[in-house]
Amino acid sequence: MVIYLDNAATSFPKPRTVYQNVTKAMTKFGANPGRGSHSMAIEGAKVIYETRELLAQFFNLGDPMKVIFTFNATDSLNLAIKGLLKSGDHVITTSMEHNSVLRPVMELEKIGVSNTIVSCQTDGKINILDIENAITSNTKLVITTHVSNLTGTIFPIDQIGKICKKHKIHYLVDASQSAGVLDIDMQSSNIDFLAFPGHKGLLGPQGTGALLINSEVEMSQLKEGGTGSESSNLNQPNFYPDKFEAGTPNLPGIAGLNSGLKHIINRGTKSIYSHEKELLDLFVKQLKNINKIQIYGPNDINDRCGVVPINIEGIDSSEVAYLLDTKYNIAVRPGLHCAPLAHKTIGTEKIGAVRFSVGPFNTKTDILAAVKALDEISQGE
Amino acid sequence: MVIYLDNAATSFPKPRTVYQNVTKAMTKFGANPGRGSHSMAIEGAKVIYETRELLAQFFNLGDPMKVIFTFNATDSLNLAIKGLLKSGDHVITTSMEHNSVLRPVMELEKIGVSNTIVSCQTDGKINILDIENAITSNTKLVITTHVSNLTGTIFPIDQIGKICKKHKIHYLVDASQSAGVLDIDMQSSNIDFLAFPGHKGLLGPQGTGALLINSEVEMSQLKEGGTGSESSNLNQPNFYPDKFEAGTPNLPGIAGLNSGLKHIINRGTKSIYSHEKELLDLFVKQLKNINKIQIYGPNDINDRCGVVPINIEGIDSSEVAYLLDTKYNIAVRPGLHCAPLAHKTIGTEKIGAVRFSVGPFNTKTDILAAVKALDEISQGE
Repeated sequence: MVIYLDNAATSFPKPRTVYQNVTKAMTKFGANPGRGSHSMAIEGAKVIYETRELLAQFFNLGDPMKVIFTFNATDSLNLAIKGLLKSGDHVITTSMEHNSVLRPVMELEKIGVSNTIVSCQTDGKINILDIENAITSNTKLVITTHVSNLTGTIFPIDQIGKICKKHKIHYLVDASQSAGVLDIDMQSSNIDFLAFPGHKGLLGPQGTGALLINSEVEMSQLKEGGTGSESSNLNQPNFYPDKFEAGTPNLPGIAGLNSGLKHIINRGTKSIYSHEKELLDLFVKQLKNINKIQIYGPNDINDRCGVVPINIEGIDSSEVAYLLDTKYNIAVRPGLHCAPLAHKTIGTEKIGAVRFSVGPFNTKTDILAAVKALDEISQGE
Repeated sequence: MVIYLDNAATSFPKPRTVYQNVTKAMTKFGANPGRGSHSMAIEGAKVIYETRELLAQFFNLGDPMKVIFTFNATDSLNLAIKGLLKSGDHVITTSMEHNSVLRPVMELEKIGVSNTIVSCQTDGKINILDIENAITSNTKLVITTHVSNLTGTIFPIDQIGKICKKHKIHYLVDASQSAGVLDIDMQSSNIDFLAFPGHKGLLGPQGTGALLINSEVEMSQLKEGGTGSESSNLNQPNFYPDKFEAGTPNLPGIAGLNSGLKHIINRGTKSIYSHEKELLDLFVKQLKNINKIQIYGPNDINDRCGVVPINIEGIDSSEVAYLLDTKYNIAVRPGLHCAPLAHKTIGTEKIGAVRFSVGPFNTKTDILAAVKALDEISQGE
């Protein structure tokens, strides 16, 4: 049995109810939701609507119709960034962002959207004054991650949200690593846009994601197509969510996400977070006893969530991951983690790092097995 | 047990192997393909690559790396249309297209891409000379459906491909209703871009689709993000398929599509097509015996695939579908079918139509039950 410590890439396993509901969506109401009036199509549409409601409640977004289902977090981020920013706008983001933020921001330079990328400290922490100081008269959007996918550093989204509100600037939070683990309240944290995948902390299947929009600002859609609404209109409908949801949705995926979400709501994010924190705390404390191991990210466990990247002196991260996989049956991710400026920030842009990331189903036994394996590998055994 | 005659919206049921492989992808190799080097991630990446190869072979595309996985056919069509066309270009399409073609084409008018929408005949057939006559010096792309989602009319893609080749214009085929049923050879038919969903004739789950690119032309991607490749590059990689596939793919969906495709390859498209043609032939012949029923689309069964739209004189299409659903447990789609100009072409833009669409698992018994139900409904029973 594999010891899966790659939950930052996708969570595994999912709750059994997720697998069951995906299968149910395919076998029992496998029709096209919103494209027919028969019972199966209506049953599918109900599941999708219920999931919208659950997500809106979970993240305290007022209007469930402003939950936009997407393909993955990348799709959500592209929609928020490109749907909002126009030539002449300025956007602020940070050096800890994933390529799913950095690459769209770089692409927009071509159409005259300028950017400032605020540098973070070597443990991934941001000085929020640097964000405030980067604001100019044409700044329209601030984008930060909630939790770094490389270091696990938790960003102070509350404080950044306050700055954005004060300066009347929109705030987009990339919750790829936090949704389902840390509490997020879009209203009280002044988050205008929340982007996340369905298949990480929310425990749904791949092929799911969402963008939650807590703003009245005008947004462009990135694609047009059939919506099952205003069928005789040759232009994309101008209401939520149809404006942003063209074509057949991923019904089995959303049904699985529905079950993942219910699992989390039942267990409670506080319980999940404290479980994961306990595991990370144990991991870090044990690793400190091993020579040759360098641990990256914040020292205080309270500043970190889900993820611990490390290196063993003198051994390539790919080699470490290879040994963990083949000799110990432990799944982790080595190398560069699609966050090039974050690697520069922590000084691993050349060597990469071995990333361990926990999920709600990991146990202390998993952690101790990983520690033992790293101890042996570091001793060249 | 429902009699499902809404296969043009999404096929139902799928082969059992599809459900099994979706579950296997979630439970056995539910990692993030291409984002880790451990065994589970590699197993997932293998399934995705094998599916690329299967699709490339199936549609005779030379290079499997030019199979781009998308969210649905709408996503594929948007990528082809917007990735290719720039300000000053002209595009030709037809009145039988779905909103997933018409709406992006209309949207592009805003950035100076002009269009000609060629009118079709009342049975949905096109005069290919009208396409040739619409070509201007700046025509860059011709887009046609392969099979109309409203009337089932089969388009002469071979002949249209020849015209496009002769005039050095790109040809995009929307195979949403034909992929998996009619043979498609991208090389011999001179198709540059083939767009289709995974969840209709190809029998995969929703949340899947692909764009196959048989051209060296420069294309823009519509979104950027993590690709698991060139991780330290702040710009989107410029090679296939990564350029067009940002973020985590829908692994369970693609695994299901893999099984759907294998099912079709085993059974053979010729066998599937002739089975479906036999059912439609029976349906149309039987309906002709019933008064008050108007049948739309081509008279010759050889000119039609998968779909028969009808109306019963004096009864709204929604009412007919409602009775079929509640009284006879037959699932169909009424009203407007996301193809507004196609409805105008056949004269049903005000009243819509009840669409019956068959799949590989329908039987003569299904068809005869539908005929009996329509007979009773038309007599007001």
